[in-house]
Amino acid sequence: MKKHAHFQTAKHIMLGSHVIKDLKEPLGGLSDSIGHALIVTQGAIQDLGFTHIIEDQLLTMGAKVDVNIDILPEPTIDNIEEVYENIQGERYDVVIGIGGGSVLDATKILAVLMTNSLSVENMLGTNQVEKPGVPTILIPTTSGTGSEVTPNAIVTLPDEELKVGIVSQYLLPNLVVLDPSLTLSLPKSITAATGMDAFTHSLESFISNKANPFSDMFALESIRLISSSILIAYENGSSIEAREKMLVGSMYGGMALTAAGTAAVHALAYPLGGKYHIPHGEANSMLLPHVMNVNMDAIIDRLNLVAEPMGLSIEGKPKEKVARDVVELIETWTAKLNIPQNIADFGVTNEDLDELAVAASKVTRLLNNNPKELTIDDIKSIYQKLLP
Amino acid sequence: MKKHAHFQTAKHIMLGSHVIKDLKEPLGGLSDSIGHALIVTQGAIQDLGFTHIIEDQLLTMGAKVDVNIDILPEPTIDNIEEVYENIQGERYDVVIGIGGGSVLDATKILAVLMTNSLSVENMLGTNQVEKPGVPTILIPTTSGTGSEVTPNAIVTLPDEELKVGIVSQYLLPNLVVLDPSLTLSLPKSITAATGMDAFTHSLESFISNKANPFSDMFALESIRLISSSILIAYENGSSIEAREKMLVGSMYGGMALTAAGTAAVHALAYPLGGKYHIPHGEANSMLLPHVMNVNMDAIIDRLNLVAEPMGLSIEGKPKEKVARDVVELIETWTAKLNIPQNIADFGVTNEDLDELAVAASKVTRLLNNNPKELTIDDIKSIYQKLLP
Ligand SMILES: NC(=O)c1ccc[n+]([C@@H]2O[C@H](COP(=O)([O-])OP(=O)(O)OC[C@H]3O[C@@H](n4cnc5c(N)ncnc54)[C@H](O)[C@@H]3O)[C@@H](O)[C@H]2O)c1
Ligand SMILES: NC(=O)c1ccc[n+]([C@@H]2O[C@H](COP(=O)([O-])OP(=O)(O)OC[C@H]3O[C@@H](n4cnc5c(N)ncnc54)[C@H](O)[C@@H]3O)[C@@H](O)[C@H]2O)c1
Ligand SMILES: [Fe+2]
Ligand SMILES: [Fe+2]
Repeated sequence: MKKHAHFQTAKHIMLGSHVIKDLKEPLGGLSDSIGHALIVTQGAIQDLGFTHIIEDQLLTMGAKVDVNIDILPEPTIDNIEEVYENIQGERYDVVIGIGGGSVLDATKILAVLMTNSLSVENMLGTNQVEKPGVPTILIPTTSGTGSEVTPNAIVTLPDEELKVGIVSQYLLPNLVVLDPSLTLSLPKSITAATGMDAFTHSLESFISNKANPFSDMFALESIRLISSSILIAYENGSSIEAREKMLVGSMYGGMALTAAGTAAVHALAYPLGGKYHIPHGEANSMLLPHVMNVNMDAIIDRLNLVAEPMGLSIEGKPKEKVARDVVELIETWTAKLNIPQNIADFGVTNEDLDELAVAASKVTRLLNNNPKELTIDDIKSIYQKLLP
Repeated sequence: MKKHAHFQTAKHIMLGSHVIKDLKEPLGGLSDSIGHALIVTQGAIQDLGFTHIIEDQLLTMGAKVDVNIDILPEPTIDNIEEVYENIQGERYDVVIGIGGGSVLDATKILAVLMTNSLSVENMLGTNQVEKPGVPTILIPTTSGTGSEVTPNAIVTLPDEELKVGIVSQYLLPNLVVLDPSLTLSLPKSITAATGMDAFTHSLESFISNKANPFSDMFALESIRLISSSILIAYENGSSIEAREKMLVGSMYGGMALTAAGTAAVHALAYPLGGKYHIPHGEANSMLLPHVMNVNMDAIIDRLNLVAEPMGLSIEGKPKEKVARDVVELIETWTAKLNIPQNIADFGVTNEDLDELAVAASKVTRLLNNNPKELTIDDIKSIYQKLLP
């Protein structure tokens, strides 16, 4: 255990199927009166009818409501600044983000843009945001990023083809609404990729150098919930029970990573996202077993502790075998989830690996959490495993 | 699982031995500048030197610091209002409570008295506080109440000899500081009683009618931590490892009870505290096995789930046996912890039981969470078990 551990999260979390219909009371508690509200989302989410449920409640409370659907998947700085320009001049009492991690991260950034005299660029890095933003409500529609409970927002720098983070306690929302019924419509491939992203958050937090009693509890419970539901949610997307476990599991993953940080898997995934647009969850999922194998001798004990929460029996098996079983189970899942295993399909060639490895080696914020130090050569040979 | 579950807690929690020396950075984040700070505590705590560590840091930040040591154990409304009168006229930028549950509860109430035009009496019950209070920091020195992370404060009505609660999200602090080194000085009897209070919070939350995925995770982890450390902390008070487990376990107990509520044990304990001044933890500890036995047929499955976190083997045993083992282990602990088993020692006689049972039956806020409905006769026969 580290000498000092920190835990930060949202102050209020609601959970339940169709709980999105019960927002009037918590909205009333947010500010003296809500005159003007902004809902941030994407067209695909609006088409599912979710934003209307929120709008209707705000309208009966006498609020004026704007809906913005212009957030792009894995948004760039330009995308967020453009959206901000279009709404500038309006004063909002609350900003409500409903969508996947892309929407939630954008919402968090928009809310602090409204109160800080800073550009998005100024906010990059840790603790650069100066003031609390407009009160926010975050409503995830994927079970993946845990962004609803993290002080992080990830944006893409298009020029440098890099994904970078904004970290600030002011990005934590006032209210989180976890409604598993919103995730019933997730296509299979997104259930798979985002679910493996959530699992990666928890497993990386659990083996992180910064692991501590807070992160351990959230990570183990998240691993337990996701392990018992990811294949069911994939095969039978209408199982509300599996969807709820995935949603709570991904939130706990966000809490775990807030307390302990992710590590090499995420560091290596960022350049694959920034340059080759490999979806974040798929990149993590491909890298996860290989990074665990490279870390193996430093994490055998920790992998033994996750075996039982993953549903593996450990009775009478040597530690090394149990640890290998854990990695193999992850590989079995990714095969059953039909997650790509080959970065060549995304246009990566052998010649690109040096540049990728150099880019990943610069993500020191996360590499510092990895139980083993990785050289550029180590990183390159991990990427190598994802080429045919 | 209930249809809708809620989770509320403090936004920022710090943990570590001697972390109390590192308050400058989080203090800086609380408000633009701290001109005037109030430390709320008791003489016994001040004598241990803890308040000086906080004062020194505030002074080097240029703040003026007042220290109030007038909070009584299990404070009455009059005690808190008197303290408030003595400090009225001062404007504080932060209020820091350091002590057991008595001090923390009083601190929470003082902070909202400073901003609301309400008396303590006006605040009794749920959601009666109208506005956020002055920013607060809560630093527990017992491992018991979990008050540092609950939206509750308990006060004694001396006229009616009753303990009653104030419940409001505005009682949640801005920062929680968990420093196990502050608990090394706890006398054996207080380690025992407060530790069993914490355990009771978790076990009652776990069997509560309002149990849900949030409370279950916190309750089970709390039960695991406390079960593995309560006897060590009692026998060997200088074990910082056991002290840390107790402190984190009691905080998780507070999170569990915030999400699910305590039940009949606490309902029956309140009149024993209000009228006979039986310390809160001792009252809970005496009642716990008897209330579990009365609830038994409704909670067999749940008790089976806590057996393993309590360190009991369940292999090959019938469910009924496992559940009985759980209750017996609790009885073994209370014997080893030398917790009184007899309310006659506190002046309760057979003739008092009717009045006690009627008083307990009025604590419907908690009795509603109990898995079984208890009649006044049921309650009376539970008290009966605590007479020779
Ligand atoms: N802030 C953090 O802590 C954190 C952590 C990890 C990842 N991230 C970031 O989050 C982003 C990824 O978020 P994501 O994985 O949730 O994907 P996403 O938000 O990009 O969503 C993926 C796709 O699914 C669609 N979609 C979302 N919900 C749906 C639903 N219920 N039904 C049908 N379609 C739906 C979206 O419209 C989108 O097209 C990345 O930018 C990543 O870097 C942030
Ligand atoms: N707010 C909540 O959620 C909640 C929950 C449970 C109980 N409570 C309330 O909390 C109160 C009980 O709190 P408690 O059990 O922590 O007891 P307490 O605060 O009354 O402390 C018990 C005694 O221990 C002393 N003490 C405290 N820390 C010490 C240390 N480190 N070294 C030496 N002595 C120390 C105190 O001075 C006091 O004399 C009751 O009023 C109870 O109703 C509140
Ligand atoms: Fe991620
Ligand atoms: Fe208690």
